[in-house]
Amino acid sequence: MAEATAAMTMDKGLDHTIIGESTKSWIDGQKGILEYVGIDIDDLARNSTFEETCWLLFNDRLPTASELDDFTRELRSHYGLSDAMCELLRSMSTSASPMHVVRTMVSAIALEDPACNDTSPEAEMNKALRVLAQTPAIIAGFHRLRRGEDIISANADNPIAIDFLHMLNGEDPGDATARALDVCLILHADHGINASTFAAMVAVGTESDMYSAVTGAIGTLRGPLHGGANERVMHMLQSIPSVDAVESFIMDRLARKDKVPGFGHRVYRAVDPRATFLKTFAKAIAQETGNEELYAMSSAIEAVMEREVGAKGIHPNVDFYSATTYFSMGLAIDLFTPVFALSRNAGWAAHAMERRADNRLIRPRCQYTGPHGTTYLPLANR
Amino acid sequence: MAEATAAMTMDKGLDHTIIGESTKSWIDGQKGILEYVGIDIDDLARNSTFEETCWLLFNDRLPTASELDDFTRELRSHYGLSDAMCELLRSMSTSASPMHVVRTMVSAIALEDPACNDTSPEAEMNKALRVLAQTPAIIAGFHRLRRGEDIISANADNPIAIDFLHMLNGEDPGDATARALDVCLILHADHGINASTFAAMVAVGTESDMYSAVTGAIGTLRGPLHGGANERVMHMLQSIPSVDAVESFIMDRLARKDKVPGFGHRVYRAVDPRATFLKTFAKAIAQETGNEELYAMSSAIEAVMEREVGAKGIHPNVDFYSATTYFSMGLAIDLFTPVFALSRNAGWAAHAMERRADNRLIRPRCQYTGPHGTTYLPLANR
Repeated sequence: MAEATAAMTMDKGLDHTIIGESTKSWIDGQKGILEYVGIDIDDLARNSTFEETCWLLFNDRLPTASELDDFTRELRSHYGLSDAMCELLRSMSTSASPMHVVRTMVSAIALEDPACNDTSPEAEMNKALRVLAQTPAIIAGFHRLRRGEDIISANADNPIAIDFLHMLNGEDPGDATARALDVCLILHADHGINASTFAAMVAVGTESDMYSAVTGAIGTLRGPLHGGANERVMHMLQSIPSVDAVESFIMDRLARKDKVPGFGHRVYRAVDPRATFLKTFAKAIAQETGNEELYAMSSAIEAVMEREVGAKGIHPNVDFYSATTYFSMGLAIDLFTPVFALSRNAGWAAHAMERRADNRLIRPRCQYTGPHGTTYLPLANR
Repeated sequence: MAEATAAMTMDKGLDHTIIGESTKSWIDGQKGILEYVGIDIDDLARNSTFEETCWLLFNDRLPTASELDDFTRELRSHYGLSDAMCELLRSMSTSASPMHVVRTMVSAIALEDPACNDTSPEAEMNKALRVLAQTPAIIAGFHRLRRGEDIISANADNPIAIDFLHMLNGEDPGDATARALDVCLILHADHGINASTFAAMVAVGTESDMYSAVTGAIGTLRGPLHGGANERVMHMLQSIPSVDAVESFIMDRLARKDKVPGFGHRVYRAVDPRATFLKTFAKAIAQETGNEELYAMSSAIEAVMEREVGAKGIHPNVDFYSATTYFSMGLAIDLFTPVFALSRNAGWAAHAMERRADNRLIRPRCQYTGPHGTTYLPLANR
């Protein structure tokens, strides 16, 4: 079998390829619908918690009260970092880029898991919980160390959203902020076979383990075309001097055919359903935290974009209003994508476990366009 | 656009999908041909060096003497580990699994690269060189630390194969051993769009960076269906008491329909062209190092397999004889896959840079098979 034959189809972005079956999330890009295991994302954002959403994605149904209790207890038993993990974090340059730190530290969780190479369902679920439980401490710990502050221990009485903000800021968040983060974590937890989730599936395809899958996913998420987009939205917002300057800023960008970060999505032609609820949320939290100007600017950008390119199916995506929300919450801009990773850990793990149960090695072909039968000329003759 | 529509094709392993064009390597699985940029792998294994092969894969032609000099000098300038990297390595559990260490440490190279987020061709090539130059020191350093020995510094006068063995064993290897490793590095450097190379391409698809791409690739390589196979070959060889026991051992396995590690390949129906030369090599080095019994056993396994399943296109692959070669060389079994990674760094980097030059986000769809329109029942009502 040659590297590419006539019976094969070129699909460079896999836009036309179905990689397998999944019961995790459903996207209707035309109508702007996202469901996790059949439940509308808006319902989950309004009523669920991140922990419950994780259980839903792992088990394909909502938990009973006692199932949720058990899950939460086990998850929290993995909270925080061991002394060795703290030492590792302290040995890292404080000027390092956070996504590279998160990728490295999540990879390092494997080093203290004696079952790191065991890929039984139980061992893989245990790894998923360790990753979910320790990522908040990794992000918060690194941020404190780089500000010259010490690491704050995790508190197993707290849900993930509250505990992350506590470890980050040294104080408990207000209810509105804690809820805003929890909603963002729910909204980002899964999204079909996006690029980072696919990276996790490619790793599982070789029967590699959860740590390898999630590490690959984190590295894939950090690209500007994926998770890195929310940081670019914030940098754009900061580069516009005022609401009045929005019109000319956006028109200039469109005239130069530059992309506007936070708009458009490979899958959605309608409005990204995650953006709808988040927009209301972003407005409320911006008002509470004195960031009205930021929200007004976001809103003005959306209006110009809607007028100019809305008819082409280009609308705000989840990154656009999550940027405003995270910034209002006081998160450093370079922590936006790490927080995305913290949430998407749930979807990565869910898809990795689902794929493993009905696995196949993922190995596409390429169309070879180089030379053939070239003679090896000795160095002296070149 | 729904998650999957009629215009889409289900291709769970991407066996029928071409992911793009490439000038790096050509595989004719029917005839058993592998070329790097048009040059037969056998020619390269007999005449080239790992460094020259890297240059070939990066630049699509063989270097002149001065180009190779410049490349080698720059590569060697990145040899060895910084104090911070040594500290990181020392902080890791000596009982950790080497591939998880390699994945974590390669990820950590990014932490001391101020250009880690710069994805210009120059910055990406620089990252590729750092990864290529430092992986040998990571593997050797970890192995010495876990044996209670200290890290040996790199020597910029040595080629990679010699320097790796020097850092590992504390003495220069014999010529035959050094050449055997160099040949193994050449043979493993690239192989079309295999699963780990594809993981690197998925990361690049989001415009992420070389460290993220290679970290994802290492995690994907470690699976038993990919790079992990050479370790399983060795474990199998060790579980067979003698040459006389081979016949019944293999026949039992085939009767139980168990796979025999080191045999068969998704792409090759003919003999894996990397196995041919390696077999001669494995024999020579086994004789030199007093491992004749091991070679005799491998040869007996091949004979039984050829008789039983050769007609089905199942032949020894590169893993089969590399296991014998590495073991004869004195490599610990759990370092076989890390050494594969050391070599494949070249192919991962070559494909990552090639893809970036004509990039597209890789985002397949899934066939959603879960429920729709499920009501969110409050916890109290479940």
